[in-house]
Amino acid sequence: MMCRMVYTRSELRSLGITVVAVIASAVTYYGHIGGTVAPFVISGAALALLASLVGRSVEALGDRLGAGATGVVQSALGNLPELFVVLFALKSKLYEVATATIVGSILANVLLVLGLAFLVGGAKNGVQRFEAASARRVCLMMLLSVAALVVPALTHLLHTPAGGHERALSVAVSILLLALFAASLPASIKKTAADGAGSAEAGHRAASAWPLWLAVTMLTVASVASAFVSDWFVAGLTPAINALHISEAFAGLVIVAIAGNAVENVVGVQLAYRNQPDYALQVILQSPVQIAMMVAPALVLLSPAVGASFTLVLPPLMLVALLLAVVVAVIVVFDGDSNWLEGATMITLYAIVATAFWWG
Amino acid sequence: MMCRMVYTRSELRSLGITVVAVIASAVTYYGHIGGTVAPFVISGAALALLASLVGRSVEALGDRLGAGATGVVQSALGNLPELFVVLFALKSKLYEVATATIVGSILANVLLVLGLAFLVGGAKNGVQRFEAASARRVCLMMLLSVAALVVPALTHLLHTPAGGHERALSVAVSILLLALFAASLPASIKKTAADGAGSAEAGHRAASAWPLWLAVTMLTVASVASAFVSDWFVAGLTPAINALHISEAFAGLVIVAIAGNAVENVVGVQLAYRNQPDYALQVILQSPVQIAMMVAPALVLLSPAVGASFTLVLPPLMLVALLLAVVVAVIVVFDGDSNWLEGATMITLYAIVATAFWWG
Amino acid sequence: MMCRMVYTRSELRSLGITVVAVIASAVTYYGHIGGTVAPFVISGAALALLASLVGRSVEALGDRLGAGATGVVQSALGNLPELFVVLFALKSKLYEVATATIVGSILANVLLVLGLAFLVGGAKNGVQRFEAASARRVCLMMLLSVAALVVPALTHLLHTPAGGHERALSVAVSILLLALFAASLPASIKKTAADGAGSAEAGHRAASAWPLWLAVTMLTVASVASAFVSDWFVAGLTPAINALHISEAFAGLVIVAIAGNAVENVVGVQLAYRNQPDYALQVILQSPVQIAMMVAPALVLLSPAVGASFTLVLPPLMLVALLLAVVVAVIVVFDGDSNWLEGATMITLYAIVATAFWWG
Repeated sequence: MMCRMVYTRSELRSLGITVVAVIASAVTYYGHIGGTVAPFVISGAALALLASLVGRSVEALGDRLGAGATGVVQSALGNLPELFVVLFALKSKLYEVATATIVGSILANVLLVLGLAFLVGGAKNGVQRFEAASARRVCLMMLLSVAALVVPALTHLLHTPAGGHERALSVAVSILLLALFAASLPASIKKTAADGAGSAEAGHRAASAWPLWLAVTMLTVASVASAFVSDWFVAGLTPAINALHISEAFAGLVIVAIAGNAVENVVGVQLAYRNQPDYALQVILQSPVQIAMMVAPALVLLSPAVGASFTLVLPPLMLVALLLAVVVAVIVVFDGDSNWLEGATMITLYAIVATAFWWG
Repeated sequence: MMCRMVYTRSELRSLGITVVAVIASAVTYYGHIGGTVAPFVISGAALALLASLVGRSVEALGDRLGAGATGVVQSALGNLPELFVVLFALKSKLYEVATATIVGSILANVLLVLGLAFLVGGAKNGVQRFEAASARRVCLMMLLSVAALVVPALTHLLHTPAGGHERALSVAVSILLLALFAASLPASIKKTAADGAGSAEAGHRAASAWPLWLAVTMLTVASVASAFVSDWFVAGLTPAINALHISEAFAGLVIVAIAGNAVENVVGVQLAYRNQPDYALQVILQSPVQIAMMVAPALVLLSPAVGASFTLVLPPLMLVALLLAVVVAVIVVFDGDSNWLEGATMITLYAIVATAFWWG
Repeated sequence: MMCRMVYTRSELRSLGITVVAVIASAVTYYGHIGGTVAPFVISGAALALLASLVGRSVEALGDRLGAGATGVVQSALGNLPELFVVLFALKSKLYEVATATIVGSILANVLLVLGLAFLVGGAKNGVQRFEAASARRVCLMMLLSVAALVVPALTHLLHTPAGGHERALSVAVSILLLALFAASLPASIKKTAADGAGSAEAGHRAASAWPLWLAVTMLTVASVASAFVSDWFVAGLTPAINALHISEAFAGLVIVAIAGNAVENVVGVQLAYRNQPDYALQVILQSPVQIAMMVAPALVLLSPAVGASFTLVLPPLMLVALLLAVVVAVIVVFDGDSNWLEGATMITLYAIVATAFWWG
């Protein structure tokens, strides 16, 4: 009875699939069954579904706490699944996977998901125009924060004296970025409150309103579950990499990044399909901003807690691919409109970059 | 009598000059006369004139076949002279000339020809505004396709594992770009058909309408002639390089690129002079898109046919100059207007880049 | 009596402070008192105040000579203090300081001063829109001139054959940029004349009108004084660097650059505060254009006069930071509006880049 009232039918269905995936993942992990690849694939799917569920719970919690708090809650908790995966990867000394996951999450959003939104939106609705200054502002914040994030990697690549102090420089950059992010929250709360009636209602998927207790419970359960599944997923990573003969960099950049982050952003593609290109852009580009200003800096500061020393020094090609992708994406958005061909080209660019990391 | 009706006086004149140049080129080549530099200069001029004639014939053919087919015909045949030159260069193992020609064709268009259009258009008409979204879309496709094209060169420059698989990666990138280009043709056909009455008539040089048989004949003759002249031109290249003490890179980047491609784009400068900046932009920037999405990938796939192995691995400075020029050109176009000083600065930038390749 | 009439009260005050700073600077220099750091700090402050005074005198002279001449006078004399500092640094063989000062002046303007203008303007006035095409044109000229300026550094970084001819290539680039700058002056004179009544009056700080003899005298005195103070400042630089344990690069990039150039641009921040964002942009971005097109080329050509051989070959990280900062700044301006958060992020980016040069 109760479920009928608080969940929509489609929510119940995706909840059921998530539960099944998590259980299957637990069974293959603890039962040591399914060989080397299946546990990895199943836990990856479970992780993606949990990431989506955490996103949905945060949204529901935001609805209840008032629009103002959504930004804070979302920033603090919405990226938990990704944080867990990278922390477990660091604990297992999979440094290259950890770094590649951060870069891959940004790349997947600015090339693959944005490209899909342009492709699907353009194929359905023809040329789409984005007019909201807000979409361009998110874009700018992404460019500025990624530019700040890559400075330690640049010092390393170019063999400057600071290259020998990568941990100190990474910590300094992380503290500055986190302080900036904290400073931006009050404004984003006020802004969300003002926009509340407009874009939020217009843009969100049709969803039932969850009561506060349910939102909190769902968020807690999904977060705890995502911590467990992250552990299993990372445990399955090394055997799967060996079995599939892929490189650590490719695994992190493509597979882990998409499982941990990009699936959630499919909502952006749906918005483009429904001809709400401005809102789609904001949803898709908000995530890279949070990764650059919050997740990556937090990992630098938290990594000693799992006995690792994570820095912002990226391998050279990741650094260059990241800068190139972000500059290209910003210019594409500044153009002011999109069509399917631009989308297809961005997806192709993503495929080419991914291919370049294929070799180990 | 007939000539009077199908050719305008200016067409007859340029046709005559082309025939004379081709004959002079043949005489110096087969007669082994004229020393080391003259045959090269004459065949270079003949090639540029033939490239222009191929362009004119493709246009005339398009007029007859209906606007829809122009895009396909133009893509397939309009770049033939350049393709021939690079293939003959590859056959003669002049790899650096071949690579430099591809890069130089793009550089010449986005800096030199675009700069000339801004300079001439601005000096004649003052500040020129471009308003058509179509010009910005061509620009974006150029940025995206060049970004995709340079990934193999980046893997090589940054010594990643993929750097050891440059041929495989180049082939993968080429197939993806060609597929994308093929997918874009139907839309560009439809678009051209819709635009036909407007921009085409307004923008084109005053020209007589060639009957179908004449357009086909001219195209066939000009294409075959350009294949021969390309051979002679490449044969004269090495002696001329030695005599003039220039580097292979400079020869390809500046001389071959301008002879094989850029002269044709002078029509873009004329359009800017006549205060049609949007159409000028489209003409000038269409060519780099075709080079990045069609000519370069085709050369990668066709190179084994002439016993060579062409890849997309560019020398580092060409790679960086290409990216820098394209990003600068895109931002200049996105500005929305142009003046003579911007044009003069772009030409200066081209001259500086060319100077940087002067030393061997 | 006379002073009352030609100077405003605030002018008198800042003139007094400047005189005191210059005298204090002379005393510590010739008296060898104050240890290693104090003389450096005092002469740095005196230099910044003199740079501001030279700027004010040039403006006053422009008012008298007619608006048309302001551009020429300003370009020729307004950058004198910075030129003196770098020439004295070159004379003392502090090559890294000299190079870093040039790069740092551009970085400080496009990240720190522009960021401050956005932060202060946004905090006071909310989102600010810039609509004038003139602001975007200055931006473009900055992008184009910096792109031209960095070509010699690129050839060196990428180990091309031209890397061995850095002095020849730097001289060629300098001559081309200076020629372009000279060619742009007549147009900027005409433009200033046309704009005169509008922006100049609206934008300038409330100032008394100086008679011609006073403007000329002030300019001469301030210029000669800035030559002396530059000498003292550079003499104090090496002891201060050793005492403070900072790197030569950091000293030039941050300290010398801000003392020699950026303080003058504080007027841009004031304009943003008074909600004149278009004019603020123009003031702030004009300076990097003059540095790239005039000061740096002039130093290349003048350096033999002080027995040094200055080239445009920048250390790798300065080159990349410069390109990154300029591209980011151009995109931020092209966005068409600004807010305090963008400003704060740009300042953070500046702080991070400065930190990266901290280690010696």
